[in-house]
This record gives sequence, C-alpha cells and structure tokens, in this order.
Amino acid sequence: MEKVFSIADVTREMGPSANGFRERWASYILELQQSICTGLEAKDGISRFTDEQWARSGTDSKAEGGGRTRIISGGSIFEKGGVNTSIVHGKVTDPMRVQLGMDGDRWFAAGISLVLHPKNPFVPTSHANWRYFELYDEKGKVIRNWFGGGADLTPYYLFEEDARHFHGCFKNAMAPFGSTLYPAYKAWCDRYFNNAHRGFEMRGIGGVFYDHLVPGEMSKQHPVSFTLEEAFAFQRAVGNQFMAAYLPIIERRADEPYTDQNTYWQQIRRGRYVEFNLIHDRGTLFGLKTNGRTESILMSLPPQVRFDYNYQPAEGSPEAALLDVCRHPRDWA
Amino acid sequence: MEKVFSIADVTREMGPSANGFRERWASYILELQQSICTGLEAKDGISRFTDEQWARSGTDSKAEGGGRTRIISGGSIFEKGGVNTSIVHGKVTDPMRVQLGMDGDRWFAAGISLVLHPKNPFVPTSHANWRYFELYDEKGKVIRNWFGGGADLTPYYLFEEDARHFHGCFKNAMAPFGSTLYPAYKAWCDRYFNNAHRGFEMRGIGGVFYDHLVPGEMSKQHPVSFTLEEAFAFQRAVGNQFMAAYLPIIERRADEPYTDQNTYWQQIRRGRYVEFNLIHDRGTLFGLKTNGRTESILMSLPPQVRFDYNYQPAEGSPEAALLDVCRHPRDWA
Repeated sequence: MEKVFSIADVTREMGPSANGFRERWASYILELQQSICTGLEAKDGISRFTDEQWARSGTDSKAEGGGRTRIISGGSIFEKGGVNTSIVHGKVTDPMRVQLGMDGDRWFAAGISLVLHPKNPFVPTSHANWRYFELYDEKGKVIRNWFGGGADLTPYYLFEEDARHFHGCFKNAMAPFGSTLYPAYKAWCDRYFNNAHRGFEMRGIGGVFYDHLVPGEMSKQHPVSFTLEEAFAFQRAVGNQFMAAYLPIIERRADEPYTDQNTYWQQIRRGRYVEFNLIHDRGTLFGLKTNGRTESILMSLPPQVRFDYNYQPAEGSPEAALLDVCRHPRDWA
Repeated sequence: MEKVFSIADVTREMGPSANGFRERWASYILELQQSICTGLEAKDGISRFTDEQWARSGTDSKAEGGGRTRIISGGSIFEKGGVNTSIVHGKVTDPMRVQLGMDGDRWFAAGISLVLHPKNPFVPTSHANWRYFELYDEKGKVIRNWFGGGADLTPYYLFEEDARHFHGCFKNAMAPFGSTLYPAYKAWCDRYFNNAHRGFEMRGIGGVFYDHLVPGEMSKQHPVSFTLEEAFAFQRAVGNQFMAAYLPIIERRADEPYTDQNTYWQQIRRGRYVEFNLIHDRGTLFGLKTNGRTESILMSLPPQVRFDYNYQPAEGSPEAALLDVCRHPRDWA
C-alpha cells in the first residue's frame, strides 16, 4: 500500500531517536538528493527527474518506511538514471540473523543511492551510495550502528585525465580526516566492484568504497576511529564531493562525437554492469531478497544492453585498453 | 588450459564406469546436441553453429572435464542461441557440502543445455536442459545418482495454440511413463521459473521441469519410481521431443511482420529473462560460483535487452495479456 511519504512518518512509526541522529541523517540524505537532482537537471537541460514518494506498512518479513524515487530518462546527457532515498526499518528476521549475521531485535536503515547512465559512450556511468544503519535491542536501545558509502566510475573508454580527476576529488575530500583513508577505501572499492566469475575484472575504474564503519572502532579496513559526529562529517564531506567529481567529466566528454561501434561496446560493458549488480552486489541482493521495492532497486540497471557470446575487443584498440585497466586497477591519485 | 575434448578424456581421467552408464549418458547428450544443432541450422537457413570443444585440468576448486559449446548468432531466425554439452567431475568441496548439502568424496555431472533467442518478437525463446549426476564415496563407488531436466517456452506475445502445442508435446512424451508425471513436472516448472522478486511472475509460460529424480525413489515431487534404465528412457523420450515441440512454433510465427514497438516489448521481457537467470537460476549460479566456464554458462543471456524503470504495458494490450499469463499460469494440455 503506497502513500505519500515524509520523515514525520518514520518518526511517528518509530518514535523520535534518543540522540536525534536518525532524523539528522535522514534530513541530510534528502537534502543531498535534492541538490544532486537539481544540479544534474541543469546539466542535462532537457529531461527532469520524476519525484515518486512512497511509503508502506511493514509486515513480519517486509520493512516499514518509505522514500523518494527520482528517475531521469531520455535526456540530452542521461539515457537513464536514478537518485533514490529510502528510510526503512523492521524486525530482524531469521534469514537476516543467519545470512547477514545481524543480531538485535529491530533495525533502521537510511541511504541515498544513485546511478547515472549517460547516452554518449565517452561519458562514464557513475554510481554512489551513502547509508547509515542502527540495530536495537528489545527495549529500543541502539546496540550497534554503522555507516557505509562510496562512489565509483564506469567508463566505456579510458581517459586518464578523468580517472585522475574522479579519484583525486575523493582523495581530497577524505584527506582532512586522515591520509590513510583514501588508500584504504580505494583498495576496498577495487576489491568490491569485481565480476569474480570473470576472474578479476572490475566493472569500471573504481573510486572509493567502505562499509561497516562503526563509530569508535578501528580495524585494518578502517584505519581511523571516528566519533559519531566525525563519521557524519566524513559522510557529508564525501557525499558533497560527488558533483564536483562527476560534473566536470560530463562537461569534457558530452559533445564527443561517437559511432555505432562505440555504442556497441558501451552496451557490451553495460552487460558486465548488469552481471555485477545481479550476481554480486550485496545491496541489490539484500533489497531483492528482503522484499524491497523492486523497481527502485533495479533502476540501477542500464537502459540498453548487449550480451554477445565471448566478445573480445581487438588487440591494441581503445576498447582493449579499457578492459586492461578493469583487470589491472591502477593508482590514480 | 583448453584443448580438444572427447569422451575418451573423461574415461581416461576417471576410469571406465562400473556399469557403463556414464559413457552411455555422455554419448546420448552428445548425439542429441548434434541432432538439435543440425535441425536448427536447417530451419535457420543462414547461420550455422560454431563448434568449440574445450577441456581443462581440474584443481581443488575447479572441476575437470570438458564439453562442446555450440553458438549461433545473426541468423535469419535466431538472433542468438547456444546448444552446449558439458561433462565434468571433481572433488566435493566444503562450499558444496555446506551450500548444496552434497555428501561424498567426488562427483560427476553431464548435461546438455540450450537456449534459443529468435529475432522476431512473435517467435518465443525456448530453453531446455537434461542432466545426470553421480556422487562417489572414497573408493569410487556410486553412493547417489540422479537426473534432472525440462523444457520451457518464453513467448513475448501469447498464442494459445503455441502454448497448447508445446505443453501437449511434453505431456505426450511423458504419458507412457505414467499419467501423473506431466502434471507434477508442469507444476514444478511453474514454481521454478519465477521472478520471485517481482511477486509471482514467471519468465514465460512454462513447460516441464524436474530435478533430483533418483532411480528407485518416489516422493510427492516424483510420482513414479524409475529403475535406472527407465529413468534413462524417460530422459530420452523428453529430450528427443524438443524439436517436435519447438520447430512447428517457429514455422508458424517466423514470417509474422513486426514493429519497433514489438521489439521494444521483446527487449523489456528479455530483461526479465536476465533477471531470472542471474538472480534465481540455480544452474547458472552453481556454475558461476564453482568456477564453471563463464562464457558457456552466460550464453543463455539474450543478445539485446532493455531495462526501463517501471515499464507497464497498456491495459487490454497484447503485451498486458502476456504479462497476465506469466502471473497466472494456466493449464495448457
């Protein structure tokens, strides 16, 4: 049952949070969604984002809450894209305990997730996501909370200048929080966006990725221990960097003329994007297997895709150069 | 390391089977592959199947054996298709024990798997698969063996005549083995080819499907107990029926004129085909997660595909009629 959604619904459903943080985080991602959509619309100049606000009642196996699904398609720049928020909560179910190792009684998750598939094969696809989780005991007390996020770039043709710019932006955004963060989260991104069923083959040239960033904890994967406030500031710094990282690349490439052969290769690589998202991506599979909102989750899939048997680019071609960098990630910043 | 493959390689690797059955089964699927490819080439008239014979050495996590991958593309009828055999064996690994509940020391699997994606949206896609497994104890004695198989039809537009013909053929092929078999395996097919993340939505109009058909055993799912010889005869009867079930449908529809809108809808439905194969299909996921031959496994994916956000056919349209029958499977035979 879908109805118009607002943060007030979540507060009414869950009660206000003890420290006010759930509400602050939810406000941040909704603001970020708004500003990204506004900026991308201005860049596209033709298409506008739809604005679908949804909410639903929970059941034992289905989360409660809502979100805003904002989709763009058929634009001058963007063939298809989505910038979605969702703010959901529910009971920790047995499958979550077994498959995800989650404990506690109830959970809360709120995030923004975006994927942009440009039409021109010289403009890369980009994806980003920032999220926050809380787990509660039976009295509603937070027993664990963590952040995750990242942004990555999937070019169809390699422009080293673009790769350096994209990585450099996130390196700069992270630097004030500790110089060890960018290298750790860059390496994590290289490991994560890997089509392992094709040996080591990344879906693009990476960016940054991190998960289970728990305030007050440090580990090999998380080289800096943040307070809750520091972690929030870090999330904002990285999230607010997205447009600065992506827009200049669009500007540089959007008017590049292209051939049917360029589009053919774009569609082959989009096939790899589909493979990654449906076979490996934890967020997608978690959403689909926990009765998430299927159309919002699958907005990430590229609009037009090809699957050829054993397609191999010609040796020495620009297509082969792209494939090489997906198989052998480089340091860009 | 790939080399030319023959059944003799498997016999050399594994030794001859105690009862000769492995070799008989392998010969059958290779003959069936040959006859199906010959028949489909004659129908297509333009394109021919490639013939790639592959073999590989095993490792602890990788099966040994080989197969023949036969691909057709760019034909007058078939935009893309594959008719593959694989005959592989390996050690039962810990992930197999845990995730698949397999016991024993070593395993053997041999099967034929085919998927045909016609160009004309009025000609349905078809898929079929017949397979045989053996599990061995440490002395190489067979401790369990079973068959699986089935054939199903994925039309883009519903022609009731075609659905009745396809189902009727397999009902007739199964009838001599027991009248309870077709209804049981038709219902299993309806349950299996379901995009559960979209509620109940089949990828097509089904056919027959069965798995873990163990000689000498009967269950609710398997209403008839077969000897090994009877089970083999049953597999042959169903497998040999495929061309009679599919070819007349191709003949009826291949010259139907179609519009870009028909192709658009075909590509949307092909998107559902990709979703099913990559998210739900056990054979695909088993292959990809056990270091199978990725390109042979993913030959099943349709050549050109669309993913639109929340695409809905117009009420009362032929596209809506197809969707309705995917959501509410009918009895066709």
